[in-house]
Amino acid sequence: MFFASDNCGPAHPEIMRAMSNANKGHMPSYGADNLMEEVRTKIRTLFEAPDADVHLVATGTAANALALSSICRPWQTVFCTPMSHINTDECHAPEFFTGGSKLTLVGNRDKMNPSELHRKMERLLQGDVHLSQRGPLALTQVTEMGSVYSLDELAALTSIAGSFDLPTYLDGARFSNAIAALNCTPAEMSWKSGIDVISMGGTKNGCIGVEAIILFDPSMSWEFELRRKRAAHLFSKHRYLSAQMLAYLENDLWLTSARQANALAARLVEGLRTVAGCRIVVEPQANIVFARLPRATHRRLHEKGAVYGLFEGPLNHGDPDELLLSRLVCDWSISEECIDRFIAMANGQD
Amino acid sequence: MFFASDNCGPAHPEIMRAMSNANKGHMPSYGADNLMEEVRTKIRTLFEAPDADVHLVATGTAANALALSSICRPWQTVFCTPMSHINTDECHAPEFFTGGSKLTLVGNRDKMNPSELHRKMERLLQGDVHLSQRGPLALTQVTEMGSVYSLDELAALTSIAGSFDLPTYLDGARFSNAIAALNCTPAEMSWKSGIDVISMGGTKNGCIGVEAIILFDPSMSWEFELRRKRAAHLFSKHRYLSAQMLAYLENDLWLTSARQANALAARLVEGLRTVAGCRIVVEPQANIVFARLPRATHRRLHEKGAVYGLFEGPLNHGDPDELLLSRLVCDWSISEECIDRFIAMANGQD
Amino acid sequence: MFFASDNCGPAHPEIMRAMSNANKGHMPSYGADNLMEEVRTKIRTLFEAPDADVHLVATGTAANALALSSICRPWQTVFCTPMSHINTDECHAPEFFTGGSKLTLVGNRDKMNPSELHRKMERLLQGDVHLSQRGPLALTQVTEMGSVYSLDELAALTSIAGSFDLPTYLDGARFSNAIAALNCTPAEMSWKSGIDVISMGGTKNGCIGVEAIILFDPSMSWEFELRRKRAAHLFSKHRYLSAQMLAYLENDLWLTSARQANALAARLVEGLRTVAGCRIVVEPQANIVFARLPRATHRRLHEKGAVYGLFEGPLNHGDPDELLLSRLVCDWSISEECIDRFIAMANGQD
Amino acid sequence: MFFASDNCGPAHPEIMRAMSNANKGHMPSYGADNLMEEVRTKIRTLFEAPDADVHLVATGTAANALALSSICRPWQTVFCTPMSHINTDECHAPEFFTGGSKLTLVGNRDKMNPSELHRKMERLLQGDVHLSQRGPLALTQVTEMGSVYSLDELAALTSIAGSFDLPTYLDGARFSNAIAALNCTPAEMSWKSGIDVISMGGTKNGCIGVEAIILFDPSMSWEFELRRKRAAHLFSKHRYLSAQMLAYLENDLWLTSARQANALAARLVEGLRTVAGCRIVVEPQANIVFARLPRATHRRLHEKGAVYGLFEGPLNHGDPDELLLSRLVCDWSISEECIDRFIAMANGQD
Repeated sequence: MFFASDNCGPAHPEIMRAMSNANKGHMPSYGADNLMEEVRTKIRTLFEAPDADVHLVATGTAANALALSSICRPWQTVFCTPMSHINTDECHAPEFFTGGSKLTLVGNRDKMNPSELHRKMERLLQGDVHLSQRGPLALTQVTEMGSVYSLDELAALTSIAGSFDLPTYLDGARFSNAIAALNCTPAEMSWKSGIDVISMGGTKNGCIGVEAIILFDPSMSWEFELRRKRAAHLFSKHRYLSAQMLAYLENDLWLTSARQANALAARLVEGLRTVAGCRIVVEPQANIVFARLPRATHRRLHEKGAVYGLFEGPLNHGDPDELLLSRLVCDWSISEECIDRFIAMANGQD
Repeated sequence: MFFASDNCGPAHPEIMRAMSNANKGHMPSYGADNLMEEVRTKIRTLFEAPDADVHLVATGTAANALALSSICRPWQTVFCTPMSHINTDECHAPEFFTGGSKLTLVGNRDKMNPSELHRKMERLLQGDVHLSQRGPLALTQVTEMGSVYSLDELAALTSIAGSFDLPTYLDGARFSNAIAALNCTPAEMSWKSGIDVISMGGTKNGCIGVEAIILFDPSMSWEFELRRKRAAHLFSKHRYLSAQMLAYLENDLWLTSARQANALAARLVEGLRTVAGCRIVVEPQANIVFARLPRATHRRLHEKGAVYGLFEGPLNHGDPDELLLSRLVCDWSISEECIDRFIAMANGQD
Repeated sequence: MFFASDNCGPAHPEIMRAMSNANKGHMPSYGADNLMEEVRTKIRTLFEAPDADVHLVATGTAANALALSSICRPWQTVFCTPMSHINTDECHAPEFFTGGSKLTLVGNRDKMNPSELHRKMERLLQGDVHLSQRGPLALTQVTEMGSVYSLDELAALTSIAGSFDLPTYLDGARFSNAIAALNCTPAEMSWKSGIDVISMGGTKNGCIGVEAIILFDPSMSWEFELRRKRAAHLFSKHRYLSAQMLAYLENDLWLTSARQANALAARLVEGLRTVAGCRIVVEPQANIVFARLPRATHRRLHEKGAVYGLFEGPLNHGDPDELLLSRLVCDWSISEECIDRFIAMANGQD
Repeated sequence: MFFASDNCGPAHPEIMRAMSNANKGHMPSYGADNLMEEVRTKIRTLFEAPDADVHLVATGTAANALALSSICRPWQTVFCTPMSHINTDECHAPEFFTGGSKLTLVGNRDKMNPSELHRKMERLLQGDVHLSQRGPLALTQVTEMGSVYSLDELAALTSIAGSFDLPTYLDGARFSNAIAALNCTPAEMSWKSGIDVISMGGTKNGCIGVEAIILFDPSMSWEFELRRKRAAHLFSKHRYLSAQMLAYLENDLWLTSARQANALAARLVEGLRTVAGCRIVVEPQANIVFARLPRATHRRLHEKGAVYGLFEGPLNHGDPDELLLSRLVCDWSISEECIDRFIAMANGQD
């Protein structure tokens, strides 16, 4: 019973098979493998973007930091939410890769509010050399709280950035879960919604460690290559990144796995609603659930070995009825039985 | 017939098997997997260094740049050879990770000369705020030219660094091939030879992509963790790095594979000596061979599909007898037949 | 009638005289001038800190960015107020000099609140490699809003930093005005209040361009020298920085000028209270006044040529009675007559 | 008798007078002073470049590092000589400001050799992501050894850079001395010779501390402003930089002073040729003299209080006839008597 993160699950058997298949003979290194050519073609087709530039890296933080550094100068500030991964979980990687940019926090929690975005951008007067200069808009889809921007919401936000002539980045660590939730096309959720650069995460959705970065403006390609290399994120045995991504793209594995994870999370939420005292914090739209449960319930779950994020405490003393915030994430590999057992345990029936 | 680099070969079946074995169920992420605990223990035992700090990354450039940034301040200069990977092959990753340090080049080609090292260190007067400040000594073992420092040579160089109170780093991308060549222990070739930080490469010797960085002074551990994370080199699904390294350490796979690669290179050299006009440039001690061959021979080899580094040209016109420099690298996976066929082709017998 | 900033006023005649006096013959460069030796001695005496390390730079931003970079690692975050100069007026100089640190904003406006500081420090959990790591506390005295921390307030804030084992920096661009306001000693407002590094500004208080940075822990001295040089802030003809600072220290010019500026501001406030509709925003304690005045009053003042900061607008259309925020700063050189005339103009009597 | 550097001399009385004249009343800060408008106009006229962009900073290292960072990306390398100030005297300021670029050293000592420049540029293969990418050519005029590139030599070097589509920077810390030596116009020695960005130093030639940076392509202007501010090199009381530069430009003070300094150096060389054993190392063309003199002569000069750079030693023991290298620099303020007395002392007549 492991709901700590979707990066705790195993890789999908198809991914492992692809790794084995790729493990034959010699192949040119540093991205010159044939598999990468196939990846590029498939992603361009999937995104209906025949000129798009595609690069692979192995971590989500690398995808974010490299993408941002490509569209943000050191004296510019990135507009993002306070809970965004780039603000809270990357130990200053964006600041390091950009050479000292700032993050301007918009909104309180979860989704960014268009009117506040407009206000923050407008208030940052330009032409004054003392101030931060306006930089890119960075969104996360699925958000860190588990909700999903609608296409209209995305378009509203990116059009504000556009009105200030600013580029946009979408952190798609859970891109697939968002597509599954919105039931739209990758093109619709990216360039058709005004996104300039996007990451399409594989790691959290059944891969070992691979993220695609897609630049819809291919003129940035060579600079991106140089940035990736000098950040030590160009793999010599690149074929193993290509192989993962290729298998992920084939037969819609990316989408099937994401649908599976989302469905599991929906089942979990349904179950949680039956647990006494449970409060769902943000209505989950993908595979992340934030729920408050009574301390006594958490204690029972922990004693039975359930693993998940608990943000308030202490667990072991205090009012047993007090609600403590927790975060539960489903990856594709979790079984329905596991979820049902977790709910049963929460309900004291196990 | 692929002699372009040891990063073009496949992963060893034992490595692939370990990946599959690790691919079961859920596991804590970001290096908290149990496999990493085993890796740490095994490396400490192997290096006879019970307090050593061990970290894994996926690329050799990451290992070099992170290791150097841990022991070199931005105003210091790294002493290294002109041909060192950090100088010629990393697109300024060391400069980026250290925040603007320099590289001071010592020697002409291949091995560093102790007296020149001493001279360069001595001549860089200290206490003058305008100058580069002395920083770490960085050696590569096996060198980029395919030779190997003896333990005495290593000790001579590190003792010079020590006399100036400077730390030392050993880029061990081909650490295993060097141990195989010297037939010494890892401890002898590292801390017993005055090395403070070392990388032990797996990628070029049968792994998919993993390098261990070993800090013999564990007080640097937490800072190293922070540096790795902010450089986006901390893997969420870290278990797959651990699994590779663990399999690499088990049953001396690292050593067996390196011996195999070195033996193959020796066979290649032996063969090359029979090729008309061939000049071996540096006496090969591990798995890299630099050889000059007549243009006509290169042309024949290329027509037959042999792949390797050719540094002088043009291939297709010019004196057929002119000797052109080439670099041939053997990884563990090459067969003896393949080498024999290559030699036969070079000799015009195929 | 120039109230735009205290950096718009002329240098004090004593400073100019010192420049001329220093302009004789040849002198060692880069800080080895005899005058600097005198500066060092005088500052140590003034601060009752015989071991303190003293450096001069020419801009306040250089003082802030160099001081912070000396006590803040790239993965750490500086605790400061949203209105602090380092956050709003330095175009990412702190982020540049530190190599990518963040600023964590504490409080809303003006002074920092101890309980919020404690809460922000506490909430930033340590030992988690993904998060910003706690870094120095940075205070500004006089604050950007013109108020002054009492010695008790300073001690309360620095003791919180101390309880988390964090260093403290005081941006003393208006150090002298604060001392004049508090009527305390430099030692009391610095190390006796728990400050580790302080800047003592000269530029805004009658100098041409000089700021002293004082490190109470002299072990940081050599690194500071290197940081200053690599940031290109070490002056070759350093004697002219020394001469300014020396004249500033002699006969308490720093204090006399600051008292003068503060008294002028007090006279201005007194006058403003007589202006119809005027609202003093923050009770001024030094030489900065934030006041809201009716649009019609601002218009009259502007027509008469008064220069000062106007943050709300537009000036030329809208309700004449609407109050618009303005910032008025007095430097030592303003005459009482000038202030009286300004008030008369505001009152429509001129 | 101070020949240590031209930054050890006093400021010219005209500069001091201009400082005093500028010290009247209030003036807008941060470069918005009227004096700067005059400086801009005068420099554009002087350089026959009506669109040129002009900025002032206070140190030569700031001029170099800011200029280079404007035309060099972090993954590019600057082509310069081993003795160039940016390589030997700036404690990694160029590496810091550019964010990690390298310097590729061309030539041995003194002037850069066009054919070696071509060779180094050509050999740095492009399109390979592992390598340093070609960046700007940086020349110094007057060179650090005291010689001066002819206009033809400059054109030859910059046309090589142009053929590789690379920008050029000229470090003109001693720009005026070079113009005086070549007897050409500023336009001829800058954009007409293929220079894109140039610094025109004032500090070493009678100013207190001011350098103009001139960008012949004004499209880089705003980015330069941001770089200057974030490096903390934008002065609030900017009028004092403007005033120096204005006085320097008026009545050709820059040229008169440089001619004076050059003439003094010529007199010094003439004298040195009469000193027994003296060897002039590089034929001096401006105000820097490198000469070898017998140890006994140096000892005599030092005992009499002469101050200059002595690079070989020890002074106090060793063969009295051994020639030791010294560097003697003349600034405008040295008297002919002083030089004559120095020569007399060297000749043992004083």
